[in-house]
Amino acid sequence: MTSNDCLGFLGLGVMGLPMAQHLAQQHPLVVFNRTREKAEALAGSDIEVAQTPAEVAARCRLIFCMLANDEAVSHVMRGPAGVFQSDLRDRIIVDHSTISPRLTRTLAAEAGQRGAVWLDAPVTGGDIGAREGTLTMMVGGPREAFEVVLPYLREMGRLIVHVGPVGQGQMLKLVANLVSALNLMAASEGVRMALDLGLGLDEAALVMQNGSAQSFELTKVLDRVRRKDFTPGFSVAHRYKDLKLALDLAREARFPADLAWSAERLYREHLARGYGAQDESSYWTRWDEG
Amino acid sequence: MTSNDCLGFLGLGVMGLPMAQHLAQQHPLVVFNRTREKAEALAGSDIEVAQTPAEVAARCRLIFCMLANDEAVSHVMRGPAGVFQSDLRDRIIVDHSTISPRLTRTLAAEAGQRGAVWLDAPVTGGDIGAREGTLTMMVGGPREAFEVVLPYLREMGRLIVHVGPVGQGQMLKLVANLVSALNLMAASEGVRMALDLGLGLDEAALVMQNGSAQSFELTKVLDRVRRKDFTPGFSVAHRYKDLKLALDLAREARFPADLAWSAERLYREHLARGYGAQDESSYWTRWDEG
Repeated sequence: MTSNDCLGFLGLGVMGLPMAQHLAQQHPLVVFNRTREKAEALAGSDIEVAQTPAEVAARCRLIFCMLANDEAVSHVMRGPAGVFQSDLRDRIIVDHSTISPRLTRTLAAEAGQRGAVWLDAPVTGGDIGAREGTLTMMVGGPREAFEVVLPYLREMGRLIVHVGPVGQGQMLKLVANLVSALNLMAASEGVRMALDLGLGLDEAALVMQNGSAQSFELTKVLDRVRRKDFTPGFSVAHRYKDLKLALDLAREARFPADLAWSAERLYREHLARGYGAQDESSYWTRWDEG
Repeated sequence: MTSNDCLGFLGLGVMGLPMAQHLAQQHPLVVFNRTREKAEALAGSDIEVAQTPAEVAARCRLIFCMLANDEAVSHVMRGPAGVFQSDLRDRIIVDHSTISPRLTRTLAAEAGQRGAVWLDAPVTGGDIGAREGTLTMMVGGPREAFEVVLPYLREMGRLIVHVGPVGQGQMLKLVANLVSALNLMAASEGVRMALDLGLGLDEAALVMQNGSAQSFELTKVLDRVRRKDFTPGFSVAHRYKDLKLALDLAREARFPADLAWSAERLYREHLARGYGAQDESSYWTRWDEG
């Protein structure tokens, strides 16, 4: 394979794996994952497993990345065998991870010094959206590079929106996540209160989903509560990480996100009770202990 | 008209008027409104304007009611020319107002002593739902009485759910309103933060409405912000009244509605700034003054 006809993909977790699989349906892929076994389970005639991120970058012009947090993205780029160790002329790096806008801008500058263009392209729609190829993506960075990668993004997502310069994708993602965190907690609080008042779950669900209480997160909470299943999905630790990043951003921008700060305190308490690895909707169980 | 072939309707406000008009398409109506001119504008061959609530109750077996708050419902029932002054044998009173479950149970008992059955049937879907006949209604009270009025409720609403004994309709309404209040404030905070960060309203709206930030209230906020129009609609004073009723109920039930209490403080500040008569979504403007 040459750098012109393969795509690179870094990070094959809950989100990255199905996203890479969508790309693999139409293109040869060179992939890297920290836990090598996960990558090898995917290997086949059109999917090669690289030894290092640097190898992916050396071989592919377009490099997609879906990692857990700032530390993971920083390491895969700047680490000893990282992407930034390779010649990056004409490369476009598309980062689907949700990380801080500040780190995004710094990495974009460092990539630029090496000849690459950085696009931040975080996603919303969860693991279901990743599997079904129905993700929404918000993309920051130069419009010309965006146009180049757009056909590939369309293989992984349904709605792809260019939202501004580099970092703006992350900003919008963090703000949208702040709203959904609040909606998640509102839905939990309301449904739980309804049950405590003696209302039935089915009646409460029917009314709330067909009125002004309706939200994406309400549907998710109701589904989890019905199944009594809090295996992640999107973990409490990830949810809290994103909420914290959003509030760091609010502080930097001197934006008084008052309701979100109240929510942060409550969600932090839930995390501190040992729920980090449970699904975000396990917030629901906080009323078990009162 | 006799009490068997007419319907009574008390309260012809933003919600009551279109609801009464739906019923009037198929049945003769006897209506009462505190401001008599509003009722007379509606009068016609099949709509008669009564002098008092007592007259409506004397003439109609089914009495629908849509009023602003506890005080208004209490007065129209217990006042000097109120419903409770009439012989109420075989009457069914259907209260669509959003009032406290506590007052609902008391009025239901007083109505029962006079021979009437009380159903609490608060609605969700707003003035648009009332005009289009697409309201969702949650009904508390005896199931037999519910079955009797169900065909009429279907003329005003789309989804009609019997949720339990008398008062349970109000309880579910208050809880659903608590959730929508939180979603409204979350949407306002998020969209405003996005604009402060330099994102475009169209891009932010597109992404948020197609991802996990989506909610009924987000759509409403975006519509109001685009039109820069905060005429009510559902006023800040009404929204705050319902939030307060929900928190009174939470306190009675010893349910710790922590996020809602934080929201109550923030929304009370907005009310105190003089926005009571504006649309609930004017909460959006709180960041103008920072």
